[in-house]
Amino acid sequence: MTGAFAAATHVERVGESTWAAEIPPGWDVLGAVDGGVLLAIAGRAMRAATGREPVTLTAHYLAPGRTGPVEVDVDVLRSGRTFTTARAVLRQGDRAVTALLGTFGDLAEDADVLIQAHEPPAWPDPETLPRLTAPNDDGFPPAFVNRIDVRVHPEDAGFYEGRPAGRPVMRACLRLLDDEPIDAIGMLLAVDSLPPPTFNTHLPVNWTPTIELTAHVRAVPVPGWLRIDTATRFVSHGRLEVDGVIWDSADRLVAQMRQLALVPRPSAS
Amino acid sequence: MTGAFAAATHVERVGESTWAAEIPPGWDVLGAVDGGVLLAIAGRAMRAATGREPVTLTAHYLAPGRTGPVEVDVDVLRSGRTFTTARAVLRQGDRAVTALLGTFGDLAEDADVLIQAHEPPAWPDPETLPRLTAPNDDGFPPAFVNRIDVRVHPEDAGFYEGRPAGRPVMRACLRLLDDEPIDAIGMLLAVDSLPPPTFNTHLPVNWTPTIELTAHVRAVPVPGWLRIDTATRFVSHGRLEVDGVIWDSADRLVAQMRQLALVPRPSAS
Repeated sequence: MTGAFAAATHVERVGESTWAAEIPPGWDVLGAVDGGVLLAIAGRAMRAATGREPVTLTAHYLAPGRTGPVEVDVDVLRSGRTFTTARAVLRQGDRAVTALLGTFGDLAEDADVLIQAHEPPAWPDPETLPRLTAPNDDGFPPAFVNRIDVRVHPEDAGFYEGRPAGRPVMRACLRLLDDEPIDAIGMLLAVDSLPPPTFNTHLPVNWTPTIELTAHVRAVPVPGWLRIDTATRFVSHGRLEVDGVIWDSADRLVAQMRQLALVPRPSAS
Repeated sequence: MTGAFAAATHVERVGESTWAAEIPPGWDVLGAVDGGVLLAIAGRAMRAATGREPVTLTAHYLAPGRTGPVEVDVDVLRSGRTFTTARAVLRQGDRAVTALLGTFGDLAEDADVLIQAHEPPAWPDPETLPRLTAPNDDGFPPAFVNRIDVRVHPEDAGFYEGRPAGRPVMRACLRLLDDEPIDAIGMLLAVDSLPPPTFNTHLPVNWTPTIELTAHVRAVPVPGWLRIDTATRFVSHGRLEVDGVIWDSADRLVAQMRQLALVPRPSAS
């Protein structure tokens, strides 16, 4: 364990195909453990079971995760020369919290960039931006932002003071506290660490529970800040997608994320 | 069964949690069954097991599918008020071909479009475009295009004659033969029916096996042509993503797709 994130998502093997973790307080959003923390815990168990790094990992969120003990049952479906595919269920007692399916492999196989048809956006120096902090445990921003170092892009930061930018985009820089390195498991936290882009619009939507999230990890980032660029294009038929691109400080694409979330109907008032 | 696609992907329940299908000849790409056909077969079994329509379905392709008998084992993980989550393995004999995880629900829940930040692209009348056909069973285009009606966008059609457009985009209109309707299961075929966008570039890549594909179905399309718009932004570290957006003939977003594919290293020559 090299830091608070590694400790919060640490797993111990407790059975032939079962790993256990203990989620400490403070990694939640209003009582529900952050989806990226659940993804990271399951990813660690699946990494241990496959002996390989996450390349593409999909999670379906079945029920809110709670602080406290959790177990992950992993089932390796196929192991080949290049990849190992496994599925898992993260549960708390008899309650299935998250179901996962992923393919694991070698992240250092081929470092060539053949096409990059989208360039990293211009960004102010994150050291000059204010750190996002939660004033208390049950407010907004959620308490778990105190466990990481998030610097929201100045054009997107107004919504925290009630001035949304008016377009479904949310961008921030992220690093772990105390220079804890971000490996492939840390990327699983990073892909689900920002508020939804629709919070930056005037839509009357203040809660968008994730149905499914898929992370593609291309490479382990070089040390330094991650830049996370997320956007939503379609809010329709009661659902929305969030697309995320993560760059490392060497301007390399290191991960992509897409999630599908539910758009609760505004309650009649 | 209302047509050739429904017949090719028809499933029969053969056990408590097992469905069987028989893939007829002609739905393959050089001997490997098209990934959208495998997704549709598994989707039908999972739809039968959950009693609901596919909302988000992820497939990991473990081994090539072959013409002939196939079985799908479905495991329902959780059924709630709004959604049912299930996982499945599609196999041929003892060989796992495709592993799946999906959430199923009601596609007609809420027809409001709240944000559409990306408009359907301008498109010529598909009736005026030539139908893509395969001259023989083991050439290019692959034989399975004869089973559907695909009209490639004129700006992207040159690559079939060795003149790629030079950018990683591939667009086409699609319908099933004999006016067979496209329901949510038909959409699972549609999301994986075009050649990869990188075929439209000058990259020396002529084979990009899919590792993982996720389809989000927003709505059942109205009758008529689907427009499918796919693009790749990042070819790096030995992998590429393909993003797809599908519009129906009423200009509604009906599905999104993202897949991760392997970029084989060009052989030294």
